[in-house]
Amino acid sequence: MLRQAQEQITIATRGRGFYEFTEEVGTRLRALRIQTGQVTLHLQHTSASLVIQENADPEVRRDFERFFARLVPDGDTLFEHTAEGDDDMPAHVRTALTAVNLTIPIAAGRLALGTWQGIYLWEHRTAPHRRSVVLHFIGE
Amino acid sequence: MLRQAQEQITIATRGRGFYEFTEEVGTRLRALRIQTGQVTLHLQHTSASLVIQENADPEVRRDFERFFARLVPDGDTLFEHTAEGDDDMPAHVRTALTAVNLTIPIAAGRLALGTWQGIYLWEHRTAPHRRSVVLHFIGE
Amino acid sequence: MLRQAQEQITIATRGRGFYEFTEEVGTRLRALRIQTGQVTLHLQHTSASLVIQENADPEVRRDFERFFARLVPDGDTLFEHTAEGDDDMPAHVRTALTAVNLTIPIAAGRLALGTWQGIYLWEHRTAPHRRSVVLHFIGE
Repeated sequence: MLRQAQEQITIATRGRGFYEFTEEVGTRLRALRIQTGQVTLHLQHTSASLVIQENADPEVRRDFERFFARLVPDGDTLFEHTAEGDDDMPAHVRTALTAVNLTIPIAAGRLALGTWQGIYLWEHRTAPHRRSVVLHFIGE
Repeated sequence: MLRQAQEQITIATRGRGFYEFTEEVGTRLRALRIQTGQVTLHLQHTSASLVIQENADPEVRRDFERFFARLVPDGDTLFEHTAEGDDDMPAHVRTALTAVNLTIPIAAGRLALGTWQGIYLWEHRTAPHRRSVVLHFIGE
Repeated sequence: MLRQAQEQITIATRGRGFYEFTEEVGTRLRALRIQTGQVTLHLQHTSASLVIQENADPEVRRDFERFFARLVPDGDTLFEHTAEGDDDMPAHVRTALTAVNLTIPIAAGRLALGTWQGIYLWEHRTAPHRRSVVLHFIGE
């Protein structure tokens, strides 16, 4: 019979960049002993994202930072919402351009990710933050 | 035992801009008396988006409009699909750059959103439209 | 009572472009005889996307290609991750700007898509690839 479970993961970031937490989701999944199902991940913030990206080459993540720094520059004079710092509005825009929630199938007791896929918190603020991700599992 | 329910919300837009409907989702959730679970929101259109963004400062949404107006300008000569107006193809691109569906966990009978997160319909067409969102709840 | 089912669809691409597979998802759904529920689609790759877009006018997809070719140009000197070809890092960025998973409600035995919505695999690499999509159904 289908059942559900809810977990929370807190990630302490050291400022802008990618923080992989695939293994932590896998640990929670194994403890729950769900063989088939799905997990929804929801990030409770508006200035950081959840992304599934290549976990092989760190150069990929550095190129992502360079691309987004050019696309949505800190301190862009276009922005009027600057009270929280010149990286705040760009952080909101980066978040809207990516995602704050993901749903991943579970097969044979594991996340059904592709060979090169990792789950990342992408911190968009330059200062360190504590970020909270709610995990909702459904399966059997 | 897990159960499901499906609802529909119609939002009448007054043209391009953000329309928050967090409270309307919460009202449906309370009527269903689901304590733990998740809700999937699906927007049945290709020229408007669903986004979770900061609901504190309206300046944030105005900056979003300015950024997207620069990134995907109406009437851009790059576009050939112009029969439905010069804001139509930009509306499709804005939609692809954001999202048309979201899944949000439910905890303690409430949407597990962060303190500053609100759920918005983002209308990308300049003319008013009626937009339909399907809500699918699973929980107990 | 709620039940679940998992399927896999493989799509052979002929290089960059849109490949609609709405009908294939519908066929799997009908075979499962789920009347009400939801399906999660997860693409197991980091250089292609899943998008829901207009399936009426092929010009829309050509305009998408033109827009993304300008936004994230192949061979952009900004990128250092070039070992896998000058379209590889742009493919990762296009993927992050769109999505690799979607969740769609099921109503009356059909996908609850809007009139003009189709489900597409968007291949971002220029060479042909075999792409794998995991489908997870929950419903009754």
